[in-house]
Amino acid sequence: MPAHDPILGVYLSATEDLDRLYGDALRRCASDVVLRHPQEVERPEDVRFAICWQPGEDDFAPFPNLGLAMSVAAGVDALLAHPGLPASAAVARVRDPHQAELMAGYAVHEVLHHERGFDEMARNAAQARWAPVRMRAPASVQVAVLGHGTMGRAVVRGLRAMGFSIRVACRSLPEEQLAGVTYLTGPGAVARAAEGAHHLVNVLPLTTETENVLDAALFARLAPGASLVQIGRGEHLVEADMLAALDSGQLKAATLDVFREEPLPDTHRFWRDARLRLTPHVASDSLPEVVAEQVVETARALRDGQPMAYAVDRARGY
Amino acid sequence: MPAHDPILGVYLSATEDLDRLYGDALRRCASDVVLRHPQEVERPEDVRFAICWQPGEDDFAPFPNLGLAMSVAAGVDALLAHPGLPASAAVARVRDPHQAELMAGYAVHEVLHHERGFDEMARNAAQARWAPVRMRAPASVQVAVLGHGTMGRAVVRGLRAMGFSIRVACRSLPEEQLAGVTYLTGPGAVARAAEGAHHLVNVLPLTTETENVLDAALFARLAPGASLVQIGRGEHLVEADMLAALDSGQLKAATLDVFREEPLPDTHRFWRDARLRLTPHVASDSLPEVVAEQVVETARALRDGQPMAYAVDRARGY
Repeated sequence: MPAHDPILGVYLSATEDLDRLYGDALRRCASDVVLRHPQEVERPEDVRFAICWQPGEDDFAPFPNLGLAMSVAAGVDALLAHPGLPASAAVARVRDPHQAELMAGYAVHEVLHHERGFDEMARNAAQARWAPVRMRAPASVQVAVLGHGTMGRAVVRGLRAMGFSIRVACRSLPEEQLAGVTYLTGPGAVARAAEGAHHLVNVLPLTTETENVLDAALFARLAPGASLVQIGRGEHLVEADMLAALDSGQLKAATLDVFREEPLPDTHRFWRDARLRLTPHVASDSLPEVVAEQVVETARALRDGQPMAYAVDRARGY
Repeated sequence: MPAHDPILGVYLSATEDLDRLYGDALRRCASDVVLRHPQEVERPEDVRFAICWQPGEDDFAPFPNLGLAMSVAAGVDALLAHPGLPASAAVARVRDPHQAELMAGYAVHEVLHHERGFDEMARNAAQARWAPVRMRAPASVQVAVLGHGTMGRAVVRGLRAMGFSIRVACRSLPEEQLAGVTYLTGPGAVARAAEGAHHLVNVLPLTTETENVLDAALFARLAPGASLVQIGRGEHLVEADMLAALDSGQLKAATLDVFREEPLPDTHRFWRDARLRLTPHVASDSLPEVVAEQVVETARALRDGQPMAYAVDRARGY
């Protein structure tokens, strides 16, 4: 293997020490891809790429030659909306197969949790009450999944393995279609997926088109007493509409893993609402080894002028 | 289709009104298979079969010509141990594919619940605390499954769909083997399956060999801080050994759906143990339509002298 010139990158995050999270894995993975904290960089013009998690407002400014900004997470909505992101830089993101598996596990857990009445059983158990709950044949349970990217596909596969009937709103029809899954496309796909569903799982990317998609009109299409599992982005949800649907009984319960403000402030009313299951943005996570491998591969592609397997379409938004 | 003589059966249960549960489905399913409550039977010698759920001590005695006792549930241990069961009667049980799917859903929910720290997150949420929990790559998580009958196979498929690594203790090697699953047979299979496992799921049938299988020696083989998901029979578990393993931290938590005494008495210490998740024998259930179909098919096989697809091996015990 020929020796390559090292390529220099910088960690950009206002909230996390990315070297602490990924530095060891990166150094184990490659010696020709070098990462530095901004304050450790001697010649900013030598920095060719940035790996990013919630970069600060002026974080990109010191580096005039950035050809790539790579997110360590799957969602790039915040990065694409960053006013300092150089217009000419490619944008990429980590695509961790384990991350999709983790997301599927979270979604399957929550749909089963609502479907099988585990909260009701926990309340009974707290009172030493033996009281069986009703069960339905899994095939008679309709689950609507919004979104069919890497995450959505894994969620659909996981839910399908539990025997549920699934309607999924997709951007385009997939080549491989699973039995028991109805794939919907086009302008009305989200509404049609929700029609009569007992459970609604949101894994859409956040774009101007999908913002506020979880609203009163959508909830009204669900079966009465349905549940919501919200693992997209906080901005997908019209919170007041959800609370009204819970009040009317149209929604029986909701699981929220993402919020408009994160961390969710400890004064937020959601914390005190027994109809809500709240988790701290943990539906999935990237593993350091996978982040390192994909960062290295993408940085080398930039250096060598090759196509980047993990690039996103900046115009489309994901 | 030629007309057939009707065949007469009787409902035998000390605890449930089986006509209320299954009567409508049976009448919709067939007119040549007729079920009666014992007190409605005019000529007991005409009764050819019984469908059973926890029959009373003397329930079989009035009927001299029983050729079949069929359980409406998947487990037949209690029926086979019934002192009044006629020695010459065939024994059969319902095998509901939805029942296996329901069982798989329960097991997957509980393993994910322990693996992903949902109880810890619920405690945090109750205090309005935003505190992410650790995640592991699903493939690095070892799950031991004990039992590979209809239920065990469905449980293995469901857990495998979540990406976990699985070792399963089986009676014999299955023809179809899944990637990511290690199939173990022979005398040490249960112990080898448990070795280093992060989660232990019991779906064994209850026999003299499997009674008390969940004991201190088995728990000691698990990874420290493992979880137990007990959906076999109450008699599989040595309760004192489990409590000791929880006290030492060898077990972190346990889910129990089955108990030596059911309903679990409201004075039982388990109800007040925060390390235990207790559910009232709801891991699965038979659906009335499926029960009716299989009862009718089996009763007709008895009448026509044909093999019974849902028969169990009385000597083997399942």
